[in-house]
Amino acid sequence: VPPPIITLLTDFGTTDAYVGIMKGVILGICAEARIIDLTHGVSAGDIVAGALLLRSAVGYFPPGTIHVAVVDPGVGSKRTPLLIETTPTTCLVGPDNGVLRPAAQALGIEHAVALTRTEYHLANVSPTFHGRDVFAPVAAHLAAGVPVDRFGPVCKHIESPSIPAPRASADGVTGEVVHVDRFGNLLTNITAGDLSAFPASSLSVSIAGCAPIPLAGTYSDVASGELVAVIGSWGALEVAERDGNAARVLGAGRGTAVHVRSV
Amino acid sequence: VPPPIITLLTDFGTTDAYVGIMKGVILGICAEARIIDLTHGVSAGDIVAGALLLRSAVGYFPPGTIHVAVVDPGVGSKRTPLLIETTPTTCLVGPDNGVLRPAAQALGIEHAVALTRTEYHLANVSPTFHGRDVFAPVAAHLAAGVPVDRFGPVCKHIESPSIPAPRASADGVTGEVVHVDRFGNLLTNITAGDLSAFPASSLSVSIAGCAPIPLAGTYSDVASGELVAVIGSWGALEVAERDGNAARVLGAGRGTAVHVRSV
Amino acid sequence: VPPPIITLLTDFGTTDAYVGIMKGVILGICAEARIIDLTHGVSAGDIVAGALLLRSAVGYFPPGTIHVAVVDPGVGSKRTPLLIETTPTTCLVGPDNGVLRPAAQALGIEHAVALTRTEYHLANVSPTFHGRDVFAPVAAHLAAGVPVDRFGPVCKHIESPSIPAPRASADGVTGEVVHVDRFGNLLTNITAGDLSAFPASSLSVSIAGCAPIPLAGTYSDVASGELVAVIGSWGALEVAERDGNAARVLGAGRGTAVHVRSV
Repeated sequence: VPPPIITLLTDFGTTDAYVGIMKGVILGICAEARIIDLTHGVSAGDIVAGALLLRSAVGYFPPGTIHVAVVDPGVGSKRTPLLIETTPTTCLVGPDNGVLRPAAQALGIEHAVALTRTEYHLANVSPTFHGRDVFAPVAAHLAAGVPVDRFGPVCKHIESPSIPAPRASADGVTGEVVHVDRFGNLLTNITAGDLSAFPASSLSVSIAGCAPIPLAGTYSDVASGELVAVIGSWGALEVAERDGNAARVLGAGRGTAVHVRSV
Repeated sequence: VPPPIITLLTDFGTTDAYVGIMKGVILGICAEARIIDLTHGVSAGDIVAGALLLRSAVGYFPPGTIHVAVVDPGVGSKRTPLLIETTPTTCLVGPDNGVLRPAAQALGIEHAVALTRTEYHLANVSPTFHGRDVFAPVAAHLAAGVPVDRFGPVCKHIESPSIPAPRASADGVTGEVVHVDRFGNLLTNITAGDLSAFPASSLSVSIAGCAPIPLAGTYSDVASGELVAVIGSWGALEVAERDGNAARVLGAGRGTAVHVRSV
Repeated sequence: VPPPIITLLTDFGTTDAYVGIMKGVILGICAEARIIDLTHGVSAGDIVAGALLLRSAVGYFPPGTIHVAVVDPGVGSKRTPLLIETTPTTCLVGPDNGVLRPAAQALGIEHAVALTRTEYHLANVSPTFHGRDVFAPVAAHLAAGVPVDRFGPVCKHIESPSIPAPRASADGVTGEVVHVDRFGNLLTNITAGDLSAFPASSLSVSIAGCAPIPLAGTYSDVASGELVAVIGSWGALEVAERDGNAARVLGAGRGTAVHVRSV
């Protein structure tokens, strides 16, 4: 049996020791766990960004992986701490504020439990750091073999994040930028599936008032410094500047409207 | 026996390969070591910040963990390279400039040795990178089972960092901000213990000229955008803005005075 | 046999989940692999910086380590995906755009193969993320024991990055800054070997119009706030400000000329 994998996604940043502390808690409970950082650079409290990044990643981990996501502006309030089990026996652990649901849906939700059983939390649970005191120890106990239904009662409702949906228009699809990555690439909420009704060669993309951008295969299909639209590694439409930064050159960011037209 | 854990805390940042190189050195000596990053985002040369972050973390790691802390503005000078063993058989390794002492005291200092035995250092010790050439190999040899007293002679004196202490005042306690975290939360040097003489419900906090802030249980006890004071996850008084950034809104930072009054 | 080590160096940053996703792919293929981050902070598309950082690190990892370097502005174009085996049975995996060669040369190149055998790639290779779809799975299959020659045909030519070379001058050596590290230290392309013809005590360094800086042993040989030149941990000439930031104080950066004179 390979060692259990626990991934961590938070908005804690890496200049404090918060993430390292969570890892200490995990290893104290399950010494053999493999801990992988997805990212800790989610903007403070940005549940939608956390949900999208988590969803983009979970399909690339082996069955049995435990994903912990702590973007938790309501820590210490009444929001439920949650564990979701999905069909390829993957588990997701975090606050029930929407951050877990898109990833869980992508994998196929089996069932969820509320993390009420305090014997699987640290002995002293602070009201401000449930990543350390609740979510890390629950993930570690899961990794150590505690069955899902031990952590608390079944939870019927799971919160959804407010991710905007694309809309079909007369001549194509209208959506928006939902994430800007490190390269300044503009990732949209328009998926390859949303565009499947149109011949790919007929499609062009309008954003931020610039001239229509033809849909290409990859960044290097255009010359350096030119804009390009591709179906990117998320399986969604993405606008990039080759060897540049599309967000900067277009003055675009999250929420910028994107129109795909079939001509 | 679970594999040995080595944590790393430095001011090296993560845009260079310095931290990765330390890990290569460790794995070349002790292949089974588990290496955990506490943080590499300590401001360059900031011994006090390194000491506080290390102290906040060590209690959450299992006994036997080896903590390496390299905030070392005096690298290559005569400051002593140090190894401290503490009561739950935890070790701390780093320069004797104050960065190790608060964490070691929190765990209970057993004894310390100066790292003079060069057979446990790399063969070529550069004068500018003891993290790679001295501290990483010593930690790895420790993890591989070399006893503490082999690394050098007992060292009687351990340097202290200049962390400001809170002062009792007529109607409460006066302290200051000692750390600003990623969320802009203002962590102070006033601990829960410093306030134990007063009824919690009587306490209010003054900082940076703003109206007194009542002590609450958690961030979400106040409305979004309001200031809140809590005993945070460090066990110390912390001033935060719910869903916001207290450091920015108050123009406060390290050294800003904080007064707690009992009324 | 110790578990295989795979290092990762990219320009992906850590605010997205790209690096975490690569790790998921690796662990799905080779569950026992140890994954070490060298850095993910290379500037977007900066092949020279990636090559220098990789070269600075590889000598500190044990034989058998697999280094993956993905600084890949030409992803999806015709540049060859490459695997280089070096004399101490170390492997380097990445695009053939120059990022791998200096490290491979430092270790001693044995032979290289082009990564054409798609059974060792993910089933669906996107045109924009070969780190995930090609390089991570190849590294993981290597770690799991697949022999080098299975991954594709021998590749005779390996690209070189355009790293500037130092030049001998009448009274010394002229070079330039090739990297600025987190501390603002200015790392140059002038190695200890380039200066071996001159008595060390005779050497002084001129940069950015400042008064000549004597070559010293370590940073703390000068007073706080003074400039100092040392042979740094890369084995190359480095200009630093003790307890300060030489890049900032000198207004210097990559490409700034550096003259070493023997007087």
